[in-house]
Amino acid sequence: MDIYKSYTDNIRSAITNDSKRSKSNLNFSGPSAYSNDFQKAELRTRLLNETRQAGPLRSLQDIVDELGLQPNFNQKLGLHPDFAHLKNTGNIEKHYVHSMFIDIKRSTNLFKRYEPETVLIITNTIQRAAIHTCVIFGGYIQRLHGDGMFVYFGGKNQEPSEAAKRCLTAASMFSYFVKNDLRNIFSEQGIEAIFTRIGVDHGENHDVVWAMAGISEISEITTCSLHTSLAAKMQTHAESNGIVVGDNVKKLVPSNLYRPVCQRTGQEKDRYIFTIPEEGFYYTQYDYDWMGHLKQLEYIITNPLQGTINLKRRDSANLKQSANLAPIAALSKPYLK
Amino acid sequence: MDIYKSYTDNIRSAITNDSKRSKSNLNFSGPSAYSNDFQKAELRTRLLNETRQAGPLRSLQDIVDELGLQPNFNQKLGLHPDFAHLKNTGNIEKHYVHSMFIDIKRSTNLFKRYEPETVLIITNTIQRAAIHTCVIFGGYIQRLHGDGMFVYFGGKNQEPSEAAKRCLTAASMFSYFVKNDLRNIFSEQGIEAIFTRIGVDHGENHDVVWAMAGISEISEITTCSLHTSLAAKMQTHAESNGIVVGDNVKKLVPSNLYRPVCQRTGQEKDRYIFTIPEEGFYYTQYDYDWMGHLKQLEYIITNPLQGTINLKRRDSANLKQSANLAPIAALSKPYLK
Repeated sequence: MDIYKSYTDNIRSAITNDSKRSKSNLNFSGPSAYSNDFQKAELRTRLLNETRQAGPLRSLQDIVDELGLQPNFNQKLGLHPDFAHLKNTGNIEKHYVHSMFIDIKRSTNLFKRYEPETVLIITNTIQRAAIHTCVIFGGYIQRLHGDGMFVYFGGKNQEPSEAAKRCLTAASMFSYFVKNDLRNIFSEQGIEAIFTRIGVDHGENHDVVWAMAGISEISEITTCSLHTSLAAKMQTHAESNGIVVGDNVKKLVPSNLYRPVCQRTGQEKDRYIFTIPEEGFYYTQYDYDWMGHLKQLEYIITNPLQGTINLKRRDSANLKQSANLAPIAALSKPYLK
Repeated sequence: MDIYKSYTDNIRSAITNDSKRSKSNLNFSGPSAYSNDFQKAELRTRLLNETRQAGPLRSLQDIVDELGLQPNFNQKLGLHPDFAHLKNTGNIEKHYVHSMFIDIKRSTNLFKRYEPETVLIITNTIQRAAIHTCVIFGGYIQRLHGDGMFVYFGGKNQEPSEAAKRCLTAASMFSYFVKNDLRNIFSEQGIEAIFTRIGVDHGENHDVVWAMAGISEISEITTCSLHTSLAAKMQTHAESNGIVVGDNVKKLVPSNLYRPVCQRTGQEKDRYIFTIPEEGFYYTQYDYDWMGHLKQLEYIITNPLQGTINLKRRDSANLKQSANLAPIAALSKPYLK
């Protein structure tokens, strides 16, 4: 089954239900199935309710079941459980983390075609697909950003390299979803596709300060780190549906899937995302070949013709023992039980 | 008294205490007052504790006292009190709001000169100055963004035009602080100044959908609206220390302080931030003359030589009756009592 089918079904229903689209008659192939306002409102509430549940939608739940993952959706924005004790103190703690920024571009253009209620369902559903995907692979959702988000991977008693691999898997799956599944929907509607841009970087123990930002309950537990800031910057250097990662990630998860950003842009100035010449510090940013990453996963099959990602069902006992999955299933973190 | 003096004092102490700076000897004028690690850590905790209190720091509290404001700092990120009932439902509500995005640029460069602990104190203090300033004028802090933030102004039983005026006052005061007070500090240190960029727009009742985004506690109550999205976009069009606002704001608070962005850039394409030609919708963005705004306030005196904003102390009974302040003091909102 297509992993993201439940999400794309939800978005298609919202579009069919849109009043502005019905009026405009553009690419409109028949009367809406929901003709009166009451029915429309009922459907809207149902679609919003379906996706706001803690667990992933049915099609994505398949991957959780098949791989024997035990994601914990009992998280709270801005309160990473390993550092929650810093809330309402002036204390700090230093500890490594991976920071991932996911941005959704061009979604403002949805307002040209749809009512705000429909835009809400579309962007909420996309964001919820991202939340579910990240949490399944052990991510901690730090902050929602419009329809994008900021996610940490890693924490105490987690191997940095395993957390980095899981982060790259979540980023790759979500990128595939946006580039293929979502593009199909918007192309059916004859409108410009939205796309994603992702930035990921790893800050080491000595580089990352955890502390409270803000005041009283207008606050979050967050990181102050060059590498958190660089992850946000790298996102802006990514191409459409691209993932850009920092040199620290490459060192942790070596492979042939990295290519300096300057090779794509042809501009040498894009090689380093940050330099401190007087300290001899030159930090390289790389395009990450997420399609190559997905192809190496034993449990995923990409379907470029249909534009979907499917789960490769195999003997699940063997699958759980495989090198890629054992560290995920075995993790003893409270949110990965 | 300089309104932001307590904040700048805090930042100066953190810089004096920085180990990396002491080592580099750049612009270093003497031994640090805090020579051992224990003393340094103690000072750091004290500086972080000072600013994380709910109320504004002493120098900013003066303006609250003098104007008889009753700001309510008992807020929670992502849970506007007027729409909190939407949490964990699939329901929506339509209601006007002003959206303001404050970004702080160039702060990543602070990592070139200072330890991450010092960068934390600097960026936290700046962010807390922004939080305090916005809450004093009735803002609701929706989300923290690194060292920037996203703030709503307005809510049920609040006049949209009064909420817009207060939003512009908070934005103007904070811009002055960054452009002048903060620049002085960084110029003393011989490093590139950081700057702010602000975007503000107003969405009308029929344009703004309030709803829950995310899932369970990985969620916030937020708005889906073209004008919230445009406020974020307008921020990116602002010049250094500039404020860009949408046409709806100009209509609500008419004055001679607006100038189409295209007049600054000389590019006609910058006139409209968003268009839907087939609907005849062309939405103009304006540079807002915040210095002109501050000069019109009866209770503020700007001090360009010293680079500070001071409170003009007058007969406070008269002051409270003035047209600018009465609506603030009289508001019956829970967070503006």
